[in-house]
Amino acid sequence: MTAKPRSMHLGAFLFQVGHHVAAWRSPHSKTEQIFDFDFYKQFAQTAERAKFDMIFLADTLAIPRKHDAYLKHAVTIRPEPLTLLSMLTGVTERIGLAATVSTTYHEPYNLAREFATLDHLSGGRSAWNVVTSSRDEEARNFSREKHLDHGPRYARAREFVQVASKLWDSWQDDAVVIDTNTGLYADPSKVQRIDHKGEFFSVRGPLNVHRPPQGRPVIIQAGSSDTGISLAAETAEVVFTAWQTLEEAQSYYRKIKERMKHFDRAPESLKVMPGILPIIGATEKEAREKEQHLQELVVPEVGLAMLSASLNTDLSGYSLDGPLPDLPQLEDINGGKSRFKLVSDIAKRDGLTLRQLMYRVTGARGHRTITGMPEYIAAELESWFEGQACDGFNIMPPYLPGGLDDFAQTVIPILQEKGLFRTAYTGSTLRDHLGLERPAARQTVQL
Amino acid sequence: MTAKPRSMHLGAFLFQVGHHVAAWRSPHSKTEQIFDFDFYKQFAQTAERAKFDMIFLADTLAIPRKHDAYLKHAVTIRPEPLTLLSMLTGVTERIGLAATVSTTYHEPYNLAREFATLDHLSGGRSAWNVVTSSRDEEARNFSREKHLDHGPRYARAREFVQVASKLWDSWQDDAVVIDTNTGLYADPSKVQRIDHKGEFFSVRGPLNVHRPPQGRPVIIQAGSSDTGISLAAETAEVVFTAWQTLEEAQSYYRKIKERMKHFDRAPESLKVMPGILPIIGATEKEAREKEQHLQELVVPEVGLAMLSASLNTDLSGYSLDGPLPDLPQLEDINGGKSRFKLVSDIAKRDGLTLRQLMYRVTGARGHRTITGMPEYIAAELESWFEGQACDGFNIMPPYLPGGLDDFAQTVIPILQEKGLFRTAYTGSTLRDHLGLERPAARQTVQL
Repeated sequence: MTAKPRSMHLGAFLFQVGHHVAAWRSPHSKTEQIFDFDFYKQFAQTAERAKFDMIFLADTLAIPRKHDAYLKHAVTIRPEPLTLLSMLTGVTERIGLAATVSTTYHEPYNLAREFATLDHLSGGRSAWNVVTSSRDEEARNFSREKHLDHGPRYARAREFVQVASKLWDSWQDDAVVIDTNTGLYADPSKVQRIDHKGEFFSVRGPLNVHRPPQGRPVIIQAGSSDTGISLAAETAEVVFTAWQTLEEAQSYYRKIKERMKHFDRAPESLKVMPGILPIIGATEKEAREKEQHLQELVVPEVGLAMLSASLNTDLSGYSLDGPLPDLPQLEDINGGKSRFKLVSDIAKRDGLTLRQLMYRVTGARGHRTITGMPEYIAAELESWFEGQACDGFNIMPPYLPGGLDDFAQTVIPILQEKGLFRTAYTGSTLRDHLGLERPAARQTVQL
Repeated sequence: MTAKPRSMHLGAFLFQVGHHVAAWRSPHSKTEQIFDFDFYKQFAQTAERAKFDMIFLADTLAIPRKHDAYLKHAVTIRPEPLTLLSMLTGVTERIGLAATVSTTYHEPYNLAREFATLDHLSGGRSAWNVVTSSRDEEARNFSREKHLDHGPRYARAREFVQVASKLWDSWQDDAVVIDTNTGLYADPSKVQRIDHKGEFFSVRGPLNVHRPPQGRPVIIQAGSSDTGISLAAETAEVVFTAWQTLEEAQSYYRKIKERMKHFDRAPESLKVMPGILPIIGATEKEAREKEQHLQELVVPEVGLAMLSASLNTDLSGYSLDGPLPDLPQLEDINGGKSRFKLVSDIAKRDGLTLRQLMYRVTGARGHRTITGMPEYIAAELESWFEGQACDGFNIMPPYLPGGLDDFAQTVIPILQEKGLFRTAYTGSTLRDHLGLERPAARQTVQL
């Protein structure tokens, strides 16, 4: 018996009017439509026609620091992800629906209900990207002065996921009976309290939604710090990462799959999906020109503010064409550790000026940009996938809707021809698409 | 100049598979579809074709006390309202979308974003039913042992609405500029922090969603206690109530419109909409038989448990055919004061046995049932509306989808013929439908 060939997994990353920081200034973006339902409906239906595993929505709970530069020159407004994703349920049929919701400023009972509802009404297509909120400006929108430290923030996240999982499991799969003759709606012996009492939460349960079609929504995480890797190795089913080079990606891939053994998990029960920003041209020259054009649209104040945030260093006084100043030590960073390491590593490795670094990392927000003809982009994705650097990719179109249309029409068919990517959905749930098992309900406390 | 004639407003109350407590046992209900998107899509589209002002979703954050009776014989599961309502955005075009969200166990920044997102993407059709959570079993799902007392619960609700309103106003209507040439996305002089510091919340803002099409979602409330009336008179634009008789409804209507003067508000800026459960038959006899059939489907354990909860008294030991035991005093009730008064008043007034009272109030969950031919139901609605007892009704179909279909097909045309109800939407937002003004943004703190 030969092993089933691995299949590449693709997420369609839906961010503002494109992932590139200057997307909103591009003539290819429908910038006015950022709060228009039809814009999102078109995105979702294009992604579904192209057979993406899922649509993915990022989030943040505040307008970033350096208000003026951001407010003036960047897109700081964004739809609330779960609200938007719910809206897309009714206009799609098969594609997975993944939303980011922070564990730092939500309640597990509410979150468990929202995702259980989404999972039921979408027929088992939901995924939750579990994040922690690490910015003081987010804390100040939630009655706190400063954000939680790295340790307690992750401890809260871990307990949050536990509580939510217990709530999803609080109804056994066959608890709902519906016998109209005898008047028996549910079997109470199959509905359990969870009686959770932990460091951060006390939750009694049961949930007032029965068990979701997928058992639980697919759990996504993004942390690449050591604590983040442990949390993901223990609880995540998909991990989003940001890597610039094949070697870094391979090293991370080995590390997290290795770490899963500590938790008795099979390596294939977690899919690693780095973000990729594809800039596609009919010729390589055209693609380069597109990239160049986008870079020129970056407003320097915004680029510098983003770089300052990534590096936790105020760069506003420095010359754009000079070198970087001294940076803080990694261990002094609380929040965005992996982002700090990523950006400072690039700066050190390639000896870039501030302007060069700004162009390199702010455009794609730290993710790898692949610029070229569709064949080249497909070959690069293949080489990472076959090189055990990942199980798929989160595709971040630079501008929307054109950037997704281009990828769907030109790169996906090549991946399909190579036998790397599906030509039709074979299952109906997101777990089916991702090849993830449906978890059995754990026994909790009898009512 | 003559005053514009008042127009009746109608909400389509979407509750489980029908508002009647035994709806799930009725052969007319699609009980299996309670977590099926098509069930809700059909409801929403029927209500929109009938020109209802809005769809309304109630909520509760726990499975009620007396777990076993409820779990066994009642529907205790329900979709999370905001998630479900968001899903209906994409399959409707004009009808308003109202969801209940508790102020007791949510954060104002999250809620303000969710509703702002819904309002934008629905083209100005959102409404928020502001409630407080008053059950210990809800508290225990949110890391508390007991629910908040009436005073602090309402104080928190009041402050919550203030904070959310400030957040919706944190972007002036014309703050988003989008000048792709100069790179100016927004005018920072028109985006303000709110710097709210109150008893329950400290929130800095601004919101990361710009001002919604309606300025703010329509604010709905339901409290009928004196504190509830004051909060509604100050902040609500729609009030849902439950009255059994014309006189009670008229007295409440006068009282709340009078109370609004304290807050310098015009009486027409708040619409009073009592709940009505219509049981419709082609003949009166058929209607009575339908009602009788539904009553017989009520499982006595559930009816008694509901009555016990409403009256804050354990009735499980008493004979169904005997009188009520002594009840607690109104001032000792914390949570559900108006429900307690409603039910105990009926019991006192009409001298009912436990079984009679159970049938009277649990079927329609305390709301008025009108049983008869379509003409009779329309005439009853007209008499309350013309008798200054209300500005419209929240229609609670006893079972679904048939109960809404019947009302839409038989009662609405009569109301339209009488000139009481619209035959077409004349505006596009829920504020348009309800005849409510769009609030101007209040100035807050400059960034």
